[in-house]
Amino acid sequence: MIAAIPLSTEAEQAALRVMARCDRLAELSETPGELTRVYLSAQHIQANRLVGEWMAAVGMTTWQDSVGNICGRYEGLDPQAPALLLGSHLDSVRNAGRYDGPLGVLTAIEVVAHLHSQGIRLPMAVEIVGFADEEGTRFGITLLGSRGLTGTWPQDWLQRTDAHGISVAEAMLGLGLNPADILAAQRDVNDFCAYLELHIEQGPCLQSADLPLGVVTAINGARRLNCGFVGHAGHAGTVPMGHRQDALAAAAEWMVAIETMTAARGDNLVATVGKIESFPGAVNVIPGEVRLSLDVRGPEDNALGVLLADLLGKANEIAARRGLRFDAEQFYGIQATACDPALQQRLAQSVEALQGQSMLLPSGAGHDAIAIAERWPVAMLFVRCKDGISHHPDESVTVEDVAYATQAYIDTVLGFAQ
Amino acid sequence: MIAAIPLSTEAEQAALRVMARCDRLAELSETPGELTRVYLSAQHIQANRLVGEWMAAVGMTTWQDSVGNICGRYEGLDPQAPALLLGSHLDSVRNAGRYDGPLGVLTAIEVVAHLHSQGIRLPMAVEIVGFADEEGTRFGITLLGSRGLTGTWPQDWLQRTDAHGISVAEAMLGLGLNPADILAAQRDVNDFCAYLELHIEQGPCLQSADLPLGVVTAINGARRLNCGFVGHAGHAGTVPMGHRQDALAAAAEWMVAIETMTAARGDNLVATVGKIESFPGAVNVIPGEVRLSLDVRGPEDNALGVLLADLLGKANEIAARRGLRFDAEQFYGIQATACDPALQQRLAQSVEALQGQSMLLPSGAGHDAIAIAERWPVAMLFVRCKDGISHHPDESVTVEDVAYATQAYIDTVLGFAQ
Repeated sequence: MIAAIPLSTEAEQAALRVMARCDRLAELSETPGELTRVYLSAQHIQANRLVGEWMAAVGMTTWQDSVGNICGRYEGLDPQAPALLLGSHLDSVRNAGRYDGPLGVLTAIEVVAHLHSQGIRLPMAVEIVGFADEEGTRFGITLLGSRGLTGTWPQDWLQRTDAHGISVAEAMLGLGLNPADILAAQRDVNDFCAYLELHIEQGPCLQSADLPLGVVTAINGARRLNCGFVGHAGHAGTVPMGHRQDALAAAAEWMVAIETMTAARGDNLVATVGKIESFPGAVNVIPGEVRLSLDVRGPEDNALGVLLADLLGKANEIAARRGLRFDAEQFYGIQATACDPALQQRLAQSVEALQGQSMLLPSGAGHDAIAIAERWPVAMLFVRCKDGISHHPDESVTVEDVAYATQAYIDTVLGFAQ
Repeated sequence: MIAAIPLSTEAEQAALRVMARCDRLAELSETPGELTRVYLSAQHIQANRLVGEWMAAVGMTTWQDSVGNICGRYEGLDPQAPALLLGSHLDSVRNAGRYDGPLGVLTAIEVVAHLHSQGIRLPMAVEIVGFADEEGTRFGITLLGSRGLTGTWPQDWLQRTDAHGISVAEAMLGLGLNPADILAAQRDVNDFCAYLELHIEQGPCLQSADLPLGVVTAINGARRLNCGFVGHAGHAGTVPMGHRQDALAAAAEWMVAIETMTAARGDNLVATVGKIESFPGAVNVIPGEVRLSLDVRGPEDNALGVLLADLLGKANEIAARRGLRFDAEQFYGIQATACDPALQQRLAQSVEALQGQSMLLPSGAGHDAIAIAERWPVAMLFVRCKDGISHHPDESVTVEDVAYATQAYIDTVLGFAQ
């Protein structure tokens, strides 16, 4: 870290409490020895109860809403003023780390703890939400909690089933939630003035910059495609190199181009081939077909679209030159979510005051802020995580970084007093 | 074809007979509607009986040897002179074509048919073997028939089992063969002066050259390796391009190099990556590990070894530059088999007389000649096959090409009269 002011004892104590509570929540898991806490599980409700108790202990009124979010409100001077919303999610992937999500909820509680202990009332209320399902681990649909607040659940979500064939509606009923009431979770557009979310970076940029905190500029848009090259299978021994229509050789050339073109483009664009399969897939047969995935992301939709078009153009050129066919089908796409400039500025000021400089970076991962941004201005504060590792038991943050994060979060929220 | 002399009616009739007999043998299959004839199956013995009858009809004495090869002998002027051995195999892969193997046995019978019909006795006998198992389809071990003649079955072959757990020894007993007698199939080194094998090319070179026939210079040596790159898995959205240790990106760079370096080397070298798998293999995760196969072949072991060393060196260089680990383990290797120059010359003269020019080419696939070459001089005559397709029901040769092949085969064997 370049420069940093010393932390207050209060921030350090808050950070120790946050770390202990992350550990406590990590015990609420359906898989012994691992952390897996999914939507509408017994552990989901247990976590809500615990977090609700922690909220109540700092002077918040609490409730579980109709989609299973745990909510708390710390009243402001004007109960009619649009509230400041803080939050993140409490669910996890399978065999997860313990900071992805809970860190943002628990630091938000420390923000209110500060207000409460100092007897501070802001002009507006501060609300905290522990979102019920951001990851989509159980039902394969994401942002269920935050889209409860925006009232934008698609028609078919209640009928979506998990691996055991249990629908969302059935699982709700099993936990005393009424599927007919999901719209009761929807909040009025005038209920909130802004949404702030603190989250671990899940990437290596802050570590590389040797900084505890960063401010998110945008949550990357993404496109995912299933792609393929079709050539001709052949005997690995009898077909000379010049006679081949090797689908894997074509795919290899394309993958090199994907890496080179994307890196050259800059603009925080990333492209990944994560899955690949060759057919027939025998050691002694020239692959006649290759199926592979392409995932491209970037903070700016136009640049992302141009990159994707260029990559697909390159694939077609490679296929044509080699006498193969190329195909691609997009099966998932999400627009980039820009963070609100004024809110970014508030976060950046707090961060800069603490660590001597701010750092702006896009979020490569999705967050509840994507859903919330459909209705309210959003911004995000990132905390450095070790080696960028996330969605893994090795996910790790330092107590010192969490103390800086909590302090920056408190300072930012105090800024809403003016 | 550049130039060709007209074929004799006899050669055309012989070719029609060969084609009809290939069709007849293709009916002997364990899979209805497909051709699958494996070692020590009922169809194996049926094929032996049929081929034995065809041999006997052209004046040969016939026998089934102790490993299940069908053998025939057309006596020469000097019964003590080392015989000329002709042959190929009668087994098949699963869902096979009908010419790979049988074409060489049936054209050899036409060679003897010519001698028999013309009352010709060569100085030495002519023997034909229909080898029992070249492909290794049932037990995963190849060249069982030809290694019966050389007496080089490894100790453990009798205990090898098929997919149903039946051992070679058990399957032999079931068909009246005695596993204790396998060495009885071994032939004395003085029994033969030379081995000739006619076979479909199983590659596209003759078709590209517009020639029916070619003479094999060598059967390619081969090396097969399991290889891998190990980097670091990461979130496809959060790790910038410059921070990645993407195992698949490294593998792609290597695959491009494999293709480029091998093609640039010439020397009839070929290299193939047939299998590839990325881990964890998710669309949104940067691959932390890739496993892939490498198959390299060439007619000359030194050049093959140099290429392989260079390819592995390139992989290590790519891995080092990217901060990854590379590993490779060879799990299969076979030396190149050089064809006898004098025998090549005999075949080339016959081919050139018929089609105006000869063509020399290596064999990318393995053949019984590999085993036989351990003891006797070998040479091979290749026949053009459509689009290089083999090991597939679409495997195809023309009756005209078979007529040229039969004529060249007859002419070559008649050359042994001097």
